[in-house]
Amino acid sequence: MRWWQCRLAAAVALAAAVLALGAVGPRSPAPLRFAPGGRFKVALFADLHYGENAWTDWGPAQDDASDHVMAAVLDAEKPDFVVYLGDLVTANNVPVANASLYWDRAISPARRRGVPWSTVFGNHDDMPFEWPPEWFSPAGVPPVHCPPAVPAMPDPGCSFRGTPRVELMTAELDRACGLSRSSVGPRELWPGVSNYVLQVLSRERPEDPALLMYFLDSGGGSYPEVVSCAQVTWFQSQARFLNPDGRIPELVFWHIPSTAYVKVAPKATSEVRKPCVGSLNEEDVAPQVAEWGIMCSLSLRPSVKAIFVGHNHGLDWCCPYEKLWLCFARHTGHGGYGDWPRGARIVDISEKKHFSVNSWIRMENGSTHSHVTLSSARFN
Amino acid sequence: MRWWQCRLAAAVALAAAVLALGAVGPRSPAPLRFAPGGRFKVALFADLHYGENAWTDWGPAQDDASDHVMAAVLDAEKPDFVVYLGDLVTANNVPVANASLYWDRAISPARRRGVPWSTVFGNHDDMPFEWPPEWFSPAGVPPVHCPPAVPAMPDPGCSFRGTPRVELMTAELDRACGLSRSSVGPRELWPGVSNYVLQVLSRERPEDPALLMYFLDSGGGSYPEVVSCAQVTWFQSQARFLNPDGRIPELVFWHIPSTAYVKVAPKATSEVRKPCVGSLNEEDVAPQVAEWGIMCSLSLRPSVKAIFVGHNHGLDWCCPYEKLWLCFARHTGHGGYGDWPRGARIVDISEKKHFSVNSWIRMENGSTHSHVTLSSARFN
Repeated sequence: MRWWQCRLAAAVALAAAVLALGAVGPRSPAPLRFAPGGRFKVALFADLHYGENAWTDWGPAQDDASDHVMAAVLDAEKPDFVVYLGDLVTANNVPVANASLYWDRAISPARRRGVPWSTVFGNHDDMPFEWPPEWFSPAGVPPVHCPPAVPAMPDPGCSFRGTPRVELMTAELDRACGLSRSSVGPRELWPGVSNYVLQVLSRERPEDPALLMYFLDSGGGSYPEVVSCAQVTWFQSQARFLNPDGRIPELVFWHIPSTAYVKVAPKATSEVRKPCVGSLNEEDVAPQVAEWGIMCSLSLRPSVKAIFVGHNHGLDWCCPYEKLWLCFARHTGHGGYGDWPRGARIVDISEKKHFSVNSWIRMENGSTHSHVTLSSARFN
Repeated sequence: MRWWQCRLAAAVALAAAVLALGAVGPRSPAPLRFAPGGRFKVALFADLHYGENAWTDWGPAQDDASDHVMAAVLDAEKPDFVVYLGDLVTANNVPVANASLYWDRAISPARRRGVPWSTVFGNHDDMPFEWPPEWFSPAGVPPVHCPPAVPAMPDPGCSFRGTPRVELMTAELDRACGLSRSSVGPRELWPGVSNYVLQVLSRERPEDPALLMYFLDSGGGSYPEVVSCAQVTWFQSQARFLNPDGRIPELVFWHIPSTAYVKVAPKATSEVRKPCVGSLNEEDVAPQVAEWGIMCSLSLRPSVKAIFVGHNHGLDWCCPYEKLWLCFARHTGHGGYGDWPRGARIVDISEKKHFSVNSWIRMENGSTHSHVTLSSARFN
């Protein structure tokens, strides 16, 4: 991003922080807080898949279209927060030495509007680059686009390759203008990287968190699609520490559905019937490869209201499972498989009286559908 | 390697160079030259597969066993040159941040004895690391072995991963003690890296090359298993420039058999019959995924006497194809699939009167077998 873009984003963020809190500058990110009226609205951008086939016409065109979807959703909904729910890029396909350039484009719509965001990794974000076999034919290999800082003699490291998760996340944080709430997570959970918790402070009781958002790396790309035992243990200790009596409602975000999604999925028909709510049921759930206890841990906590995932572009439903909801986002990017119209799941949390989570899908064309209340339990 | 090891290797190389040429120092590698008597003997070390399952007992034990095979062959044959014929490491399995440590171990038997060598890449050398799914169970992830220079705070780049070809080759050249004749090859042939030509000078006519050795990268690992169109064009231009009238005999080395090997392979039986010569025929040829003309180019040149490949551990034959020979090496390393006894193909070239190429297999236990004459055509 150019310096003035960062300045502009910082100015927007500063104005928002000043309005909200009085005097928190943009360099020390303001804590997340419910907006006046006790609402906190989150937009989920899932499966953007930036960077596909940049050596063709249709690759760059679909990236432009993805920019447009996010702009339409952000301008219509004006969310307080954005969650980028994995597969921001298609790393097996990006013709650059470092996919963080495409990653940066994916987060720029939130940044440009001064909206704080966080990201989790999908299975395409740090995939190794897959060399098209036809590049070894007379067609040859197109030139790699190296960073401008590379000197005349090509950097040996400048080649088509996947970009490791830590490198993507570090680049995001370097260019965040103080707006990213992402993290590289505890070292002991690597290769899973996007493991962290965000607290959203109450509007009514300024010192108290009124919502916890857990982000987990569900793997894929450079390693198996799984939430590990180590992540389960880490989640349990975080939850015990931050929310010992379960008074604070909790939401969970990761990319690849767990096997529990298979159990609750609507039967093989394009219709989504009660108790599920949604508009797309066009394919089978593609779950993680193993289950090491995260669903058991989550379903035992009444404070956990819902899990949100992406990954399946042809599914956009929410279904109840035990005492919580399992939700798909909506395919947001024009990259990736499927021709279903693009949109974004909105999650609107209210801390007023009866804590509640409402959700709907905002389409690129401005319409909304699939409204559902994910929780009406009283927590405070 | 430690400084004294490099010094020792350099001293051996210097002594050899002084004996051979008089005054060429070890820092400017002596040109390769036929030994007194007009012989040039090459040992092929194929499929060493260092670094497998280092977190178990059997992984390190098989690497020790591979050290022993190479030592036995080198001490029995005393070759003038070693060709490392790909799959030096099993990069999808090495528990280090940079596989060049294992690569270095693979080439150290030649270096320690002051024998010059060169390397080509196989399909396992720069594979992405494959995370064992059981590491996400309660067993957990074993600690990654980072280079000692990494400070107390772990380097974000220090993780299990594949090491790119250029990085492996650059590390080899940095620690070669002037003995490596490998190269990263022309930039325009990347992602194929091990593309270069070595000239071996005549003993009788000191200025004239009496043998050309072509090394080609047959792909695999991070990109498809193929010799590209661009490599074919490069080979043709090199051959035209270095050997315009085809007077100099030529040998060719790469890792993965071309589809022509499938055509000449002995029928499905463990026996190898004339005109093929060998002792192992225990599996199907696993060829490259496409053929973009390299076999056509090679078979049209009467100066090309033989091609040597590795890759298939259960094959060790040579078979005639058009006017040249297609040969497998012998599985040298204790890493990789198969329980056939380990050994190395020896290629003994004579420039005397009738140029000739004799070959046999030297086993770890000291025996030899499968003697074959690959050429008796007169070139000079």
